[in-house]
Amino acid sequence: MIIDIAPAPALYPYYQQENDTVIVVDIFRATTTMCHMLHNGAAAIIPVAEIDEAKRYKAEGYLVGAERHTRKCDFADCGNSPFDYTPERVERKEVVFTTTNGTRAIRQGENARQLLIGSFSNIGALAEHCMEHADRIVILCAGWNNRINLEDMLFGGAFLERLTASGTVTIGSDAVRVAQLMWQEAKSDPLTFLKGSDHYARLIENGAEGDAVYCLSSDTLSVVPQYNRTDKKIRASR
Amino acid sequence: MIIDIAPAPALYPYYQQENDTVIVVDIFRATTTMCHMLHNGAAAIIPVAEIDEAKRYKAEGYLVGAERHTRKCDFADCGNSPFDYTPERVERKEVVFTTTNGTRAIRQGENARQLLIGSFSNIGALAEHCMEHADRIVILCAGWNNRINLEDMLFGGAFLERLTASGTVTIGSDAVRVAQLMWQEAKSDPLTFLKGSDHYARLIENGAEGDAVYCLSSDTLSVVPQYNRTDKKIRASR
Repeated sequence: MIIDIAPAPALYPYYQQENDTVIVVDIFRATTTMCHMLHNGAAAIIPVAEIDEAKRYKAEGYLVGAERHTRKCDFADCGNSPFDYTPERVERKEVVFTTTNGTRAIRQGENARQLLIGSFSNIGALAEHCMEHADRIVILCAGWNNRINLEDMLFGGAFLERLTASGTVTIGSDAVRVAQLMWQEAKSDPLTFLKGSDHYARLIENGAEGDAVYCLSSDTLSVVPQYNRTDKKIRASR
Repeated sequence: MIIDIAPAPALYPYYQQENDTVIVVDIFRATTTMCHMLHNGAAAIIPVAEIDEAKRYKAEGYLVGAERHTRKCDFADCGNSPFDYTPERVERKEVVFTTTNGTRAIRQGENARQLLIGSFSNIGALAEHCMEHADRIVILCAGWNNRINLEDMLFGGAFLERLTASGTVTIGSDAVRVAQLMWQEAKSDPLTFLKGSDHYARLIENGAEGDAVYCLSSDTLSVVPQYNRTDKKIRASR
């Protein structure tokens, strides 16, 4: 098993190989929220890149989640907080979802053999799934407008630790070594480690400290969201 | 004073701002070697991207340094080792130079207000120059084929420490926080820290361990190489 990390979407072309299993992560908050939606019973997620596309879906009666620059868009039903997506709201529904960075990362990785959605909430379930179904994993960090961020890299280090606990893992490149070092430093208290980060400051400004705590909690969900290239929807693979 | 780090050339567009002072680093070995050339008396360095261009200069009688994938190109006078560029060889000459990653990074940053060449060897001189002549600094890491590497990021952390010792410095983004953490971990023994890295392994394979030691030695030179946008040459600014 080989693991590599693309620290930002624009770098993925330099990390990709055939037969990759790509795990898109946007820890604060898009991919954590997507895991939460499917856990709460959403039938599927339809990721869309543009606000206009999300508005068209909204006009057709879809439940729409939309965020730009850490804030819920006015026209949308929900924003980017996992707590927006209660079972009552999402059960058996297809949720249209667009966020600042998460959607871009999914577009970048959509031609991978297998594209999964990762977060600390489903990290254990993901590791188990990958040990069974993956040869080479690339963690595709959503970052922030193609700048690298601490929280997505940190997930890479945590995921490496999980895989290593279950078998022999080969480190694909220096990006993984960076993430490993970060996780060693952060794992006793990830929230404190991230308090100086760019994104944490943005969450606090927007009153979303509770979201940050949730987004850093490991193994709260057992869902493994998988992107389907044919219909471009994300569903729980288990 | 603001400092930021673009972890790979392809990410520079997402970090750049007007009036940046860009410091290109390719610690193993291109920018270390360039500092060494100018220190040893070269009149200028002409960085070129393509092998064919370097060959044309060679045919015109220029001294040419060319490396691809850690090895000296057959047609060239010198490779990418600093020790190739003795005073006897380079004094008062213009050296044409092309390397796998370093030249690409220079191209990426060439429209910056000020483009400097950095390495551990001239880190102190650079910091002094920047305290006087820069408002916002972006360390542009050459990386390896647009993948991030440990040694270039590490320089970013070391440079932050130098600037902080001389004044108030604002961290531009999470990339700087990553580099800071790496430097904290590595600074007591950078060579050992880097022994697991991708590039160190390539240097050893090519018998260049001595180069690695030199490339990690701080404050051995006082030269500050600066790129001139008009004639596209690099000269010692002091």
